[in-house]
Amino acid sequence: MPYVNIKITKEGTTKEQKAELIKGVTDLLVRVLNKTPATTFVVIDEVDMEDWGVGGVPVEAFRKRQQ
Amino acid sequence: MPYVNIKITKEGTTKEQKAELIKGVTDLLVRVLNKTPATTFVVIDEVDMEDWGVGGVPVEAFRKRQQ
Amino acid sequence: MPYVNIKITKEGTTKEQKAELIKGVTDLLVRVLNKTPATTFVVIDEVDMEDWGVGGVPVEAFRKRQQ
Amino acid sequence: MPYVNIKITKEGTTKEQKAELIKGVTDLLVRVLNKTPATTFVVIDEVDMEDWGVGGVPVEAFRKRQQ
Amino acid sequence: MPYVNIKITKEGTTKEQKAELIKGVTDLLVRVLNKTPATTFVVIDEVDMEDWGVGGVPVEAFRKRQQ
Amino acid sequence: MPYVNIKITKEGTTKEQKAELIKGVTDLLVRVLNKTPATTFVVIDEVDMEDWGVGGVPVEAFRKRQQ
Repeated sequence: MPYVNIKITKEGTTKEQKAELIKGVTDLLVRVLNKTPATTFVVIDEVDMEDWGVGGVPVEAFRKRQQ
Repeated sequence: MPYVNIKITKEGTTKEQKAELIKGVTDLLVRVLNKTPATTFVVIDEVDMEDWGVGGVPVEAFRKRQQ
Repeated sequence: MPYVNIKITKEGTTKEQKAELIKGVTDLLVRVLNKTPATTFVVIDEVDMEDWGVGGVPVEAFRKRQQ
Repeated sequence: MPYVNIKITKEGTTKEQKAELIKGVTDLLVRVLNKTPATTFVVIDEVDMEDWGVGGVPVEAFRKRQQ
Repeated sequence: MPYVNIKITKEGTTKEQKAELIKGVTDLLVRVLNKTPATTFVVIDEVDMEDWGVGGVPVEAFRKRQQ
Repeated sequence: MPYVNIKITKEGTTKEQKAELIKGVTDLLVRVLNKTPATTFVVIDEVDMEDWGVGGVPVEAFRKRQQ
C-alpha cells in the first residue's frame, strides 16, 4: 500500500498530465514491487515558483543564472 | 511534541469539521501517549481532486469505477 | 481517501499504542468526515530525540529547560 | 525540479528495486513534464509494518482480513 | 543534496522574506554540513490559519488563549 | 508556529551538527518572520544513500558520475 507524493513547480501542468503521472507511478509500483493499485495513493502538490528554492535562491532566479 | 499531518480531498470540509479533527487528534495523542497539547501540532492539507490518485487514476474516476 | 502522518519522538511506544493511534485516527475521520476506512492510510514515524528540535534546541534540552 | 517521496512498507525491497523506482519515476517526469533529471530528487521511505495502518488496523491485520 | 520543507501559517509573508528563508537555510546547510547549494531544495508551504492546530484548537483560538 | 523538516543523506552527521541545524533554522525564523522559538519544530530525517535518487540514479552513482 504505497503512498507517493510528487512535488512540482506550478507552471501549467494539465489534468491530463497529472493523470499520466498518477498512472505512470502506479504502474511502476505494480511492475517493480507487485503492489496493488487499489491501495496505491499518489498525491501531487504544485508549488508556487516563489516558494521553491534551489542554489540558495528562488527557482526563477536559479533558472536565469543557469542560462 | 507530536506533529500530525492530515491530507484529505478538497470537497467542502468546513471550519467546524477541521476544528473537530484538530481536537480529536490532539485528544487521542493525550489519551494514548500522554502527550502535551501545547506542543502538539496538527496540519490539514486539502488536496484538489485532480491531484489525488488511487487505483492508477484520479480519485473521481476511481469513485465512478467503484459504483 | 485520507492520508495521515503522525510524527512522535521515539521513546518506547508499543505496538498496541500504535494500533490504538491507527484505530483512533481512522474512527475520527469516519465520524467527522464520513471517510471510508479501507482507503484511509495512517503512517507513524518515530523520530530520534536528537533529530527533533523545539525552542531552538534538541527536545531533551528543551524538556530540561521546562522543568 | 521535482521532489518525489515514495513510502512503502518495509518488506525486503532490494537496492536494485529501489534503483528501478528511482529511474522509473525520473523517466516519467522527463517524459510527461520535460523535467531535468539532475534536479529531480526521489526519496524512498520504508515504513515498518506496525507503523502503517489501513482500514483502522495495522497493515498485517488488514491483509489477513482481506484473505 | 538536502531537501528542506518549511511550513508556516499564511499571514502575509512577502516574496522577499521567502527569498531570505531560502538563502538562510541553504547557507546554514553549507556552513554546518558542507552541502552543495545547487542540489539543496527548499520548499515553503503557507498553511491557512484554519488548517493549523495547536493545543487542540485552530491556531487563532490558541493565540487568543495565550494572551 | 513553524514546522521545518530537513532531509539529508545519512553520512555521519553528529549530534552537535544536528543541534546547530536546529538552532540555525529556529534563529532564521525568528529573525525573518518574528516566529516564537517555543512553537517552532525542526525534524531532521537522515536518509540512507540507497534511498535517495537524483539524476535518475541513487546518490552514490550520481556523485561518481559528477567527478
